[in-house]
Amino acid sequence: MTLSRTQATFAPPVMEARRWLESATFTEEKPLINVSQAAPVDPPPAPLRAEIARVAQDVPEAHLYGPVLGLPELRAEVATQWSAAYGGGIAPSQVAITSGCNQAFCATLSAIAGEGDEIILPTPWYFNHKMWLDMQGISTVALTTGESLLPDPGDAADLITDRTRAIVLVTPNNPGGVEYPAELVRAFFELARDKGVKLIVDETYRDFDIRTEAPHDLFSDPEWGDTLIQLYSFSKAYRLTGHRVGAMVADEKFLAEAEKFLDTVTICPNQLGQHAALWGMRNLSQWLSGERAEILDRRAAIADNMETLTAQGWKLMGAGAYFAYMEHPFQMRSDALAKALVQDHHVLCLPGSMFMPDDDPNGARQLRIAFANVDRGEIAVLFERLAQADYPKRA
Amino acid sequence: MTLSRTQATFAPPVMEARRWLESATFTEEKPLINVSQAAPVDPPPAPLRAEIARVAQDVPEAHLYGPVLGLPELRAEVATQWSAAYGGGIAPSQVAITSGCNQAFCATLSAIAGEGDEIILPTPWYFNHKMWLDMQGISTVALTTGESLLPDPGDAADLITDRTRAIVLVTPNNPGGVEYPAELVRAFFELARDKGVKLIVDETYRDFDIRTEAPHDLFSDPEWGDTLIQLYSFSKAYRLTGHRVGAMVADEKFLAEAEKFLDTVTICPNQLGQHAALWGMRNLSQWLSGERAEILDRRAAIADNMETLTAQGWKLMGAGAYFAYMEHPFQMRSDALAKALVQDHHVLCLPGSMFMPDDDPNGARQLRIAFANVDRGEIAVLFERLAQADYPKRA
Repeated sequence: MTLSRTQATFAPPVMEARRWLESATFTEEKPLINVSQAAPVDPPPAPLRAEIARVAQDVPEAHLYGPVLGLPELRAEVATQWSAAYGGGIAPSQVAITSGCNQAFCATLSAIAGEGDEIILPTPWYFNHKMWLDMQGISTVALTTGESLLPDPGDAADLITDRTRAIVLVTPNNPGGVEYPAELVRAFFELARDKGVKLIVDETYRDFDIRTEAPHDLFSDPEWGDTLIQLYSFSKAYRLTGHRVGAMVADEKFLAEAEKFLDTVTICPNQLGQHAALWGMRNLSQWLSGERAEILDRRAAIADNMETLTAQGWKLMGAGAYFAYMEHPFQMRSDALAKALVQDHHVLCLPGSMFMPDDDPNGARQLRIAFANVDRGEIAVLFERLAQADYPKRA
Repeated sequence: MTLSRTQATFAPPVMEARRWLESATFTEEKPLINVSQAAPVDPPPAPLRAEIARVAQDVPEAHLYGPVLGLPELRAEVATQWSAAYGGGIAPSQVAITSGCNQAFCATLSAIAGEGDEIILPTPWYFNHKMWLDMQGISTVALTTGESLLPDPGDAADLITDRTRAIVLVTPNNPGGVEYPAELVRAFFELARDKGVKLIVDETYRDFDIRTEAPHDLFSDPEWGDTLIQLYSFSKAYRLTGHRVGAMVADEKFLAEAEKFLDTVTICPNQLGQHAALWGMRNLSQWLSGERAEILDRRAAIADNMETLTAQGWKLMGAGAYFAYMEHPFQMRSDALAKALVQDHHVLCLPGSMFMPDDDPNGARQLRIAFANVDRGEIAVLFERLAQADYPKRA
């Protein structure tokens, strides 16, 4: 009996981690610090909530089916803002709105690859990417990144075969927290173009990049549509995780292919969420600057608090987007360590083993801390708790 | 080069049909009658819109990620109402909420079948079902239904092989408009159970069934979870098409499998839509009775208006749910006829060829009329226009 599509992959890591909480008891003096998920814990600002309420009351069409590829005004807004931000020419017809950025990835892959094809994913990877490839019968070819967490285009070139269909980059990176330099993204673009494969760049965390200039120049290439597919999420910028709105920017013909998937799976993205994203893009740029400043301050707090941990043998490999990615000094495998941290120190984070193949020894040594939901004060407490962790160390 | 997943299927029929409108000119005296899509054209009733606005303003968590399998209160409400309606024991843990009923189908199939497996679909089928199977590398085995549009369990038994994973029933049927008798659904259940395959019953249109008793007794079988997966949509009952909320009712272990798909593709169903569905279930049963009465009246209007068409050689094969399914008397293939009806008579409906394999001659002779959006007066006009259609007839 063949495996079903879902049997070919593992259970969702965030939910597995949540189950570790069941056997633990937390106290008022020492509550759980949950740094397992990259999700805002506050709702969108009041004016945006008011706008959603207004649309629900006053815009009848917002309750009915909309176009498969999304609200025309939102597609146009993304095209305009992106063209300005990236210094390139992006048309509304090159933008599709999706039911979250995960769905944008799924639709993209379905339009690119079939059974037995290969996709190159740098490690550590975003686990839902791996799960989708597993479920689609697509082979994931792991591209290891080493200490810098930056993938090497030369290493990638060596992995390309006649079954390779795309290379996937996530920048700023989940889980690694590193921002890929513009030249590195450009080098991958040229590699993909020259080899006739697609380059998928997931920029879910672009609004929290520490750089103020464009993070890459790919859209300035008039032929970008032949190679590039960019993915985006409205969830983080405007705190719309519960609304499921994402985007893909790609060649118009490619979007017509992806449209088959989007039509079949969800018919259209939900309309209220699209109106919320549109209003956010048009009215919340200043508010978003404040959000970005806060995230960048938390990122700085991570570095500021590393001293004690560094002395104990911890290593901060990357800090950016919503994530700090660390190497721990213990003999214990990261999955056992993550469970022990819940029981012993009331900290929930995800083990590196969730972000790479089982046989990659790096997974056992690494942890992801999703710091976006903990402020400076909580970050200090978090690091105190990590510093108290006392398990046998590696030689 | 292998085909990508999306290249393995066709373009979405509803959108293709919409393109036929581009070359036509409609007038005020003779506007387009669009009976191509099964979608309400009015928004939900005002109290439900007010509730959505209230939740958007006052319920912070409604903007944040929720559980992958849906809002616990909504799962519980479905379990309670279904247990009463079907005379069976359905637990909240046996209900999952999805981003629309299409996604429920996709998740179900992904949990059941893999590359090269087979699924039995009665014809005429719902085209998005066929598209998903194509995109998943799953073979669709067509089960023809003949004049009654009712599939025969004996015929289905003959089609089962060691690669068969499920039989799919849609009742009330899209596109056929027929309601499957409870005994027929029971016979398919027993066949599926005895052969060790799943029975998927899509009841998107259950709220508009002309019968007042339970449409089948499968949930009264204590072992239903081993065989049955039921799918549902909140879109039609509460006019929530733009919110994307559906459901699947299945064994708890099966839902844990489907959860991998749902987590990877959309993380969770959008929260406002779920709150809307919950409020609708709790407060709109009387309103829904009125909606059902109106749909049943339109269905009666279809039969009432058939006389002239019958005299011209048309045949009403099924009328129910949102659909009338007709055999036309013309030599022209149904796809050419559907296009001609747009140009010549300002009527947009879908050809039977969109609902079955290209080599099935029935497709060329049939049309689907989605009558839910046209009232008695408009149905009379629609039938006058069809009666004016004057093309060479089959012998």
